[in-house]
Amino acid sequence: MLYDFSFQNPTRIHFGKSALNKLPQELNEYGPNVLLVYGKASIKKIGLYDQVMDILKACNKNVVELAGINANPRYTQLLEGARLVRDHKIDLILAVGGGSVIDCAKGIACAAYAEGDVWQRYYVNQESVTNQVVPVGSILTMAGTGSEMNSGSVITNEAENLKIGRVYPLALVTPRFSILNPEYTYSVPKYQMVSGIFDVFSHLMEQYFSGNDECTSDYLLEGLMLSLISASRKALIDPKDYEARSNIMWCATMGLNKILAVSKTQDWEVHMIEHQLGAYTDCAHGIGLAIISPAYYRYIFRDGLHKFVRYAKHIWGVEDHGQGDEAIALEGIARLEAFIQELGIPATLREVGATEEMLPLIANSTELGGGYKQLNQDDILIILKTCF
Amino acid sequence: MLYDFSFQNPTRIHFGKSALNKLPQELNEYGPNVLLVYGKASIKKIGLYDQVMDILKACNKNVVELAGINANPRYTQLLEGARLVRDHKIDLILAVGGGSVIDCAKGIACAAYAEGDVWQRYYVNQESVTNQVVPVGSILTMAGTGSEMNSGSVITNEAENLKIGRVYPLALVTPRFSILNPEYTYSVPKYQMVSGIFDVFSHLMEQYFSGNDECTSDYLLEGLMLSLISASRKALIDPKDYEARSNIMWCATMGLNKILAVSKTQDWEVHMIEHQLGAYTDCAHGIGLAIISPAYYRYIFRDGLHKFVRYAKHIWGVEDHGQGDEAIALEGIARLEAFIQELGIPATLREVGATEEMLPLIANSTELGGGYKQLNQDDILIILKTCF
Repeated sequence: MLYDFSFQNPTRIHFGKSALNKLPQELNEYGPNVLLVYGKASIKKIGLYDQVMDILKACNKNVVELAGINANPRYTQLLEGARLVRDHKIDLILAVGGGSVIDCAKGIACAAYAEGDVWQRYYVNQESVTNQVVPVGSILTMAGTGSEMNSGSVITNEAENLKIGRVYPLALVTPRFSILNPEYTYSVPKYQMVSGIFDVFSHLMEQYFSGNDECTSDYLLEGLMLSLISASRKALIDPKDYEARSNIMWCATMGLNKILAVSKTQDWEVHMIEHQLGAYTDCAHGIGLAIISPAYYRYIFRDGLHKFVRYAKHIWGVEDHGQGDEAIALEGIARLEAFIQELGIPATLREVGATEEMLPLIANSTELGGGYKQLNQDDILIILKTCF
Repeated sequence: MLYDFSFQNPTRIHFGKSALNKLPQELNEYGPNVLLVYGKASIKKIGLYDQVMDILKACNKNVVELAGINANPRYTQLLEGARLVRDHKIDLILAVGGGSVIDCAKGIACAAYAEGDVWQRYYVNQESVTNQVVPVGSILTMAGTGSEMNSGSVITNEAENLKIGRVYPLALVTPRFSILNPEYTYSVPKYQMVSGIFDVFSHLMEQYFSGNDECTSDYLLEGLMLSLISASRKALIDPKDYEARSNIMWCATMGLNKILAVSKTQDWEVHMIEHQLGAYTDCAHGIGLAIISPAYYRYIFRDGLHKFVRYAKHIWGVEDHGQGDEAIALEGIARLEAFIQELGIPATLREVGATEEMLPLIANSTELGGGYKQLNQDDILIILKTCF
């Protein structure tokens, strides 16, 4: 069955080596006050900070800065940004960085003119946003989250040890424009690069492993997985292979701009578990996903056997020698695990700082859901122990 | 190489059995005067005309009608629509029908407040549109052209025996909203259904057969081709298979909303030839494309051999037994031809009303271009004779 859906994604993408040249025409559409949001030193190291500041100055913008956004952006940073927006009557929030920075910018955009406890209202309770929202634009420096062309925002509340994702209405906080130059990703350390790659791969699998239908979205997701695998292998050999890095960047954007999710029920439980792993260990998001995924899929595959068989054959080229569907499906998951190893990602939670004591805390704080199989807290604990 | 690109597609899609329920909220965004554009009797036969009129009435709209749009929409019809827009101060042009009706609506939207000879200015000379443009919305009843989510408009000038396509700037005439209910396509006669299917297939191939790069768009186009082949075979057996018809409809939209065209140079010469075939014979668009395609691809495949080998293997499952790349590529084109036969589409131009005398006229009036091979008028005549 194909399910009814509505879809719109209005983000304007400027992609390629010359993409930054489009920034002035985008800036023209907004008032003079810009909040520049970015992370640690990396955008200064690659010279992007100076380039962007020069353009902002040439466009007569008044720039207020919010620097130092964490890989897991913090609620305190969101509040600080919201205050700056109000104090300086900001017309545009310009996020320069990876998904964390853009996620934080979206949170700021919604929080600036909100009343009451934003964490409770917009993240815990997922209330509708009715207050004024400030426009967001982005300049992307790391491929992974897809935040540059969607309305998701994942924020960590350190005081409460909670990392919660929120998908705002698309038209509200999806970046009005996003500038994607694959060259900006050259300087991303290998560990962060493979973390981003696996984040994308997980997005594709979590959309794919849902539904019993034969749906056009499944075929498109398969195409994107194949492109990502091929490009990743090239980028591992030469991180400055423009073709490889540009394909990875576009796979990331297409992988979560929701156009390949139409009519899919989707899973996202791996993300839910990782969010809590991240809240307890601050480990890189994609690395956490990669550690959890094989254990998760081995735990649930029998409930979506037909799809895991298709995945094994179409994505990993597993051949049918009469070994039976379960064996084919398991061989597909084994190939996924081999790919994770090829990326140089650790295989266990203890390697990213989790302790045995944390496992029940992570399991008990994970939001429940699932695709082919609805999980409870005990199921999650078993999965965590399997990959500990 | 991936080429730099900018992309934005703001159309809001409402898809599925309940999609028409979204019409009132869309209508709310426009003033009271609506120009309803449609084709022959089919929307009345399936009851859609009455449903739409009831909603328009309930939303207090003043409706002006322009009926009888041809399968190859005529310039005279565009001018008539433009006059109605001016005379009735139209706020929204609502196209109800297939791609022809939507293409015509876009032309009307741009022509209404244009000065001078619109045919010469906007179609022959492809001048920029600077005048006011009236918003367009669509309710789709036939899958094929993708016009519901792009800014293309193909118009036939009967007096001049010319059929010219125009891609307007995306933000200008792309439908603001499009309502896609696959059930509306159930009553499309089989000949029109397979014409639409092959139109989509040709869109995918004409984007795919270009560039030497390994590009994410190629993988996505392959996914869409595989989905379309699978769904088409099911629709041939049971035209009321909702899953099949809904996948075909979404393949059509995704196939030409340009998101899978990013960084592809694209070909479109098969479309250019067919446009002139259509101008001389009025044959169904997709049928013409299907007749021309095998002859065209056999003529050019050596210039893009690597891609035709990939196509043969990935799309048609041709196995490599050491027969050589040319043999593999030709086997892929033979499988395409077999698929066209499976769809029940005639194999020769004479079966759709072309005469031998027409061939040089069609060849000499075809716009020149091409993907892997740049063609001249003689090349086109050879191709036409091959499939005559």
